Order: sequence, then C-alpha cells, then structure tokens
Amino acid sequence: MNDPVLAGLLTDKYELTMLAAALRDGTADRRTTFELFARRLPEGRRYGVVAGTGRLLEALPQFRFDDDACGLLAQFLDPDTLGYLRDFRFGGDIDGYAEGELYFPGSPVLSVSGSFAECVVLETLLLSIFNHDTAIASAAARMVSAAGGRPLIEMGSRRTHERAAVAAARAAYIAGFAASSNLQAQRQYGVPARGTAAHSFSMLYAREDEPNELTELAAFRAQVDALGVDTTLLVDTYDVTTGVANAVAAAGATLGAVRIDSGELGVLARQVREQLNQLGATQTRIVVSGDLDEFSIAGLRAEPVDSYGVGTSLVTGSGAPTANMVYKLVEVEGMAVQKRSSHKESRGGHKDAGRRSRLTGTITEEVVYPAGRPPATGLGSDEPFRALTTPLVRGGQIVTDTGAGALAAARVLVASGLRSLPWEGLKLAPGEPAIPTVQIRV
Amino acid sequence: MNDPVLAGLLTDKYELTMLAAALRDGTADRRTTFELFARRLPEGRRYGVVAGTGRLLEALPQFRFDDDACGLLAQFLDPDTLGYLRDFRFGGDIDGYAEGELYFPGSPVLSVSGSFAECVVLETLLLSIFNHDTAIASAAARMVSAAGGRPLIEMGSRRTHERAAVAAARAAYIAGFAASSNLQAQRQYGVPARGTAAHSFSMLYAREDEPNELTELAAFRAQVDALGVDTTLLVDTYDVTTGVANAVAAAGATLGAVRIDSGELGVLARQVREQLNQLGATQTRIVVSGDLDEFSIAGLRAEPVDSYGVGTSLVTGSGAPTANMVYKLVEVEGMAVQKRSSHKESRGGHKDAGRRSRLTGTITEEVVYPAGRPPATGLGSDEPFRALTTPLVRGGQIVTDTGAGALAAARVLVASGLRSLPWEGLKLAPGEPAIPTVQIRV
Repeated sequence: MNDPVLAGLLTDKYELTMLAAALRDGTADRRTTFELFARRLPEGRRYGVVAGTGRLLEALPQFRFDDDACGLLAQFLDPDTLGYLRDFRFGGDIDGYAEGELYFPGSPVLSVSGSFAECVVLETLLLSIFNHDTAIASAAARMVSAAGGRPLIEMGSRRTHERAAVAAARAAYIAGFAASSNLQAQRQYGVPARGTAAHSFSMLYAREDEPNELTELAAFRAQVDALGVDTTLLVDTYDVTTGVANAVAAAGATLGAVRIDSGELGVLARQVREQLNQLGATQTRIVVSGDLDEFSIAGLRAEPVDSYGVGTSLVTGSGAPTANMVYKLVEVEGMAVQKRSSHKESRGGHKDAGRRSRLTGTITEEVVYPAGRPPATGLGSDEPFRALTTPLVRGGQIVTDTGAGALAAARVLVASGLRSLPWEGLKLAPGEPAIPTVQIRV
Repeated sequence: MNDPVLAGLLTDKYELTMLAAALRDGTADRRTTFELFARRLPEGRRYGVVAGTGRLLEALPQFRFDDDACGLLAQFLDPDTLGYLRDFRFGGDIDGYAEGELYFPGSPVLSVSGSFAECVVLETLLLSIFNHDTAIASAAARMVSAAGGRPLIEMGSRRTHERAAVAAARAAYIAGFAASSNLQAQRQYGVPARGTAAHSFSMLYAREDEPNELTELAAFRAQVDALGVDTTLLVDTYDVTTGVANAVAAAGATLGAVRIDSGELGVLARQVREQLNQLGATQTRIVVSGDLDEFSIAGLRAEPVDSYGVGTSLVTGSGAPTANMVYKLVEVEGMAVQKRSSHKESRGGHKDAGRRSRLTGTITEEVVYPAGRPPATGLGSDEPFRALTTPLVRGGQIVTDTGAGALAAARVLVASGLRSLPWEGLKLAPGEPAIPTVQIRV
C-alpha cells in the first residue's frame, strides 16, 4: 500500500544520534549482526507465535527519509549524517524464523547483518512490528487451540489504536482466526471481513408508542431484507427469548445465525439452541461474543456454540500486550559481543536455530547454534531435526515470498506448530515453556 | 499529515451493513445521538484522562471512501449504500470533554448527533482513537503524579505497534511527560524528541585485544565528540562504576547526564551520585530507565534521580491497555433509548456534564444532566460548578482550536485536573473513583 508516512521517522531519536557518532569516527562501517529475540515468554506462557515478518518486509522499502523528514533531522544531525539518511537503503542481510513459526525463550527470531549504520537504524521499527504482531498472534493461537475447531472472528478494532487494529486482524488470521471485522485488513491483507449488526441498529427502530418487542422485529425485518436470511441477528438487545422469537419470525427457520453478546453465555446458548430447535431453526448457528478470552472460550466447549467473536482480549494480547522482544548487537567484525562482561549466559554471536522432534512429530527441543554450523545429526540424538532459520533479505533484496500465499503459508505453519506441541504445551494454565532451548557453543 | 490510507476503512464491517439496512428502509435519516463513555474505569483506578480529541478532529475529514475502497465495498454493499459512502462527509454535531479533562464512570466524554447513517459509521474509528489514547494518557498521568515534578521521558515506541507509538507519545505528552523518543511524534505533533545512545553503541567499539573498560571509553569519547558534553552517557553496559569513571573521563565534569538502565536503580542512583560528586561532576544528572511504572517511579522518590525514562508500562497503559469506552445510541428522534428494557440504570438521552468543586478547588462531584439543562446553581449546593461539555464540531465543521496550542492547552488541563483531585484520588493503590458521578434526570 502506498503510504507517504515513510517508515524512517517511526524511530527512536537515539538510533540516529548513535548513527551520527558512529559515522563521525568511522565505526559506522563495522560489520555487525543484531539479533531479535525474547529472553522470556510472557508470564506463564508455553509458547509464542512469530508474527510481523510480512509487515517488516512491507516496511523495509519504506524505511526512508524524504526532504520533509530531513528538515526535522537537520535540527540535531550534522550534514554527513543527513546525507547518509537521505540516500538510505538497507543493503544487508536478514535471516529469521518464517512467519507463523512457534518460538521459545532465546529463539533467534531474526538476525540482521550489515554495517552498524544500516542495522542500528532499523531497531525501533523492527521491534515495534514484532513486539505487537507477535503478542497478538501468540494470544490468538491459544484462543484457536481453546476453541477446538470452532471458528473465531476477530472483532477488537475498537479496543486498540486504529492502525494497530489492522495489524492485529492480520496476526489473528495468521494464528488461525477465520475472519475479522476490520475492513482495512481485508483490503490490505485479504483477511476475510465479517459483521452484521450492533445493538444500536435494533434501538434505532424504537418508538414512543410501541413496545420494544415490536420495534426489534421491525429492525430484524429490515436487516433480513437488506442482507438476506443467512445474516446473523443480534438477539440480546432487550430480552433474549423475545429476540430469538423475533429473529425466526423475521427470517424464517433458515436464518443463518443469532448472536448473543452478554450474560451467562453458556446457559443462554443452551436455552437459545433449544428455542431455535423448537422453532424449527435447527440449522441456525449460535455466535457468542462479549469479553471472551481463551479461558472463557475453553469454558464454552461443552455448550452448543458455533462460533466465537473475540475483541478486547485479542487486541490486548490477553494480558501480554507486548512480546518482550529485544534487538541486541551480537557480533562485530566476526567477534561475538554481549552486554555484560560476565560469561555466565552467553548470548553473543550470529546464530541459527533448528527444532528437534520425536518420530511422532512432537517437538522436544529448540537448538540454537553458531550460524552456518548446524549440529551433526546422529550425534547424541537420532530425532528428526528441522532448520528454522531461513533467508529473508539478501543484499537489501527480499528473497522470500511476500504475496497472498505468504499469509496462507503462515496459517499452515501455526496450525502444524500447534499440532507439534507436547500436550503440556497446549495447557492454558501458567507453566514453563513447552520445550527447552539448548544453546550450542562453538 | 496527508495520508492516503483514508480513515473510512479503519472500520468494522457491521457499521456499513447496518448502514445498508437502514438506508434501504429509510430509518438511516432518523435523528440520533450516540454517546462515547466508560461504564467503569480500569480496575482500581481513581480517575481517567480524556485523550484522542485532537486525533479525532484530524481523522474526521479523512473519513472518506475512495474508488479503491468502494471497489472492496461493492463486494457486499448495494449501489445506494456505495453512493452514500462515496459522497460521505460527516455533517452532524460533536460535543465533548476537552482533551486533557479528567473523566469518571458515566462521564459523557463525547456526544455525536446527526442522522443515524452519519453517526453509526464513525463508531469504530472513534472508539479506536479514544480507547487507545485515553488508556495511555490515564496511565501516564499516574506516572507524572508519582514522579513529583521530576521530568519523564516516553521511550516505549518499540513495545507497541509503530503507529500506536506515535499516538502514545502524544498522549503521554498531554498527560505531562516532558518528551518522547519518537521522531514522528515530533514531526506530527511537536512532541519534543530526546535520546542519545543504546548499549549497542558501546559494544560496537569492542575489540578482541582490548578490555571492555577501554573500548567503552572510546565509545563515550565518540559520542561526546559528536553530541557534545551535555549528552547523556549510558553507563551500565559492562560495569556501572567503571562506566561512570569512563563517562567523566570522556566528557569532563560538565557531562550532562548518565543513564542507568538495569539493576536495583535506587541503590545504583545513590552510588552513582556519590561517585559523580567525588569526580567533581556535581551538576551531572542521573536518568534511570528499565521497566519503570508508576509504582517503581514513586519508589524512587527519595533517591537522587533527576529524570525517568518509561517504556513498556506507558505504551501498554500500565495494566490497562484499553480504556473500556463504548459508543452507544442514546437518543432517536428526541426519545431516550437504551439497551435493556430495565430502567434501573438509565443511560438514555443526550447529556452534558459539569463538575462541582469546593472553594479550595478540590473537586467533589461529576454532574451529568440532560443536554442544555444545567442544574440550577444554589439549589442544594453553593459549590463552584464548571461546565465540561464543549462544542467540537457543528454541521460537520470543526469549531475548536486544533493547532499546536491545543496540545499545550490539554497539558494545562491535565495538570490542573491532577491538582483538583481530592488527595485519595492521587493514591496509586487500587480504590474507588475519586469523585462520584451523579445523574440528573429530567
């Protein structure tokens, strides 16, 4: 999408003051690798789902500084730095986990290699994209898993920043949601959009001289007239039992669905199912919504619910609105570097990763190793080993699929990732990461 | 800012299917009022801070549907509805709390009046803007209050969606933050940008044959050379004591500031203050950062800290990433309407609000009353009464200041709002709203 808010300024000021200092004394050209990873998962989570890769590849060519931006930057940057930014194009390499892969603490989700100058300026934008999208996808995957095959619809746009909403719809779709309420997500990413009516539509038909039961029926008739009998009618504006009766009266027994948005959803779903069946609407589906999260979704498993609408908890990451990812310099001119002098927990060096599994497909271990040096198979383990690190950018050029197929592939990857988890890994209750991460040193 | 992502599609699909149904049967023209309000504050909060008004007024003229958008909408909308959207301009009225006002449960933060058609389509975008910006400003105000006059710098861009980051920087600034790390927030809203260096800059100077103490000194010298002695040097990359010694060695005793980003910040601040004083750098300031929130900020009050850098907790609303605001139809053709038939808690009708205070300025009560009918003063109370509802849009035209002065005015309003709270209202611990909201019926 053509967007003249160039991504360059979606950046912390210090990236550019560091750049200025490094350009001035020549260190800006040192060859570096930065790694994007999470030291830990959000409290109690068993796994995370990588999301943001496609958006990064979309943003990378937009990471530029036009005259307007340079006018602002001239207030605190010298002419050499300004000249560098005016001509900026990332020319390095990016390797990383494919979008939709599971990740665990210490997984090298992204490795960015190039001059210090070109790698450091990407820090803020990369972290913004991955910390947001990954937080949403990770929460969404738990909901998908809790729903046990029933479709989920993302409807949280109103609970988050209007642009974050579009990315959240995309991340939820990657994680296995069936659709989103957000229209821009359909235009920009092809996420199927869904939606029918809110309470305000039923209330619009209110009249001083008529009881709500009659005016609700008028509203339902208007909706069916415009959207057909396969529409979803919202039945809890006034009274659910009357609402269901009105819904079938308006649409007939082939009504597509009813939605319940409040109250004790399990009890209501059972009552409504029974009422619908009595009215002959045996194929009419029941959609529930209203402050659902992975726990309440799981709690409704035994109820006659056909699909779930999820809003607030999805777009806020269900308690973990950001993914704790950091972007750290790990290598300078081929030398591993790290923040503290202590070598207790080495994180330095450019790394790749793979994942071991049993022959059944259940994963057992995340293996992180020096880039380009995968562990010899058969040594200490004859378990299947799958490489996770793939090339995304080479010399500034995107070398992976970014089309509509990429989103579909990410969905497949999440689904197979969830199937590969040991059963403890699918528990919603707080616990340890589903598999350990093993760091292989040189 | 000119942005061709027209705001129209940043919308839930059901706003437009409701529109289609209402246009088809003529109810789309009914005169309505929708109200944006919060039924409750986030758990335990004493007050909220309204933010988003300026962004709403910025977005309103962009709420349009171009040919590209209409191409998508043609997949599910009839030609009449498409024609309506193609020519869409909001032509109604908006009244509301000024940006920066405190709000409480039931405060009518925004009232949107016009045809059902023009009011309902704004729902998603309005809620996105206010739920996000208000959540951030409300958390930020608690941090400002906890900091007791010491400056706060917002540096959370990397922990939230890249566009949400810009709005978060703006909201934090409204709430009283001194600056932000985000450059786009400076360009777009004039929020002062700050920032100097990250750990990666010190690590960039690492060499196999030199100890970290020496290479850190080289990094500091490079930074001072580029940014001057008034810069802020980050002293905890390897060892804080060595870092402080290197900092003063590189910049001299007139070094602007040192930043500590990890560890037990209170203890470190005291040690660093003592060390700086011994080195003659008595005017060098101490900036602390690293997972700060309002509680840890308050916990550092007794320590020699000069300013705070706040990231994650700010952009995630410190536990409340969304503000619970809803947008409800309250009036149709002059008749109050509400969701349930029960009249126990009436919310129907177009309302205005004012706030009572003692003569000392301490506020005592939020008063919500039928629009245009303020309570008679002197009746039952001789406390000062200030009207909160102001006209923002009349007949589609913005009638309030939206320039640079508006942001400054919002800052003043938050500051005076915090001063007006009863002392219990400033407590960080969970509790009830600082003042009650009284609903006056007709």
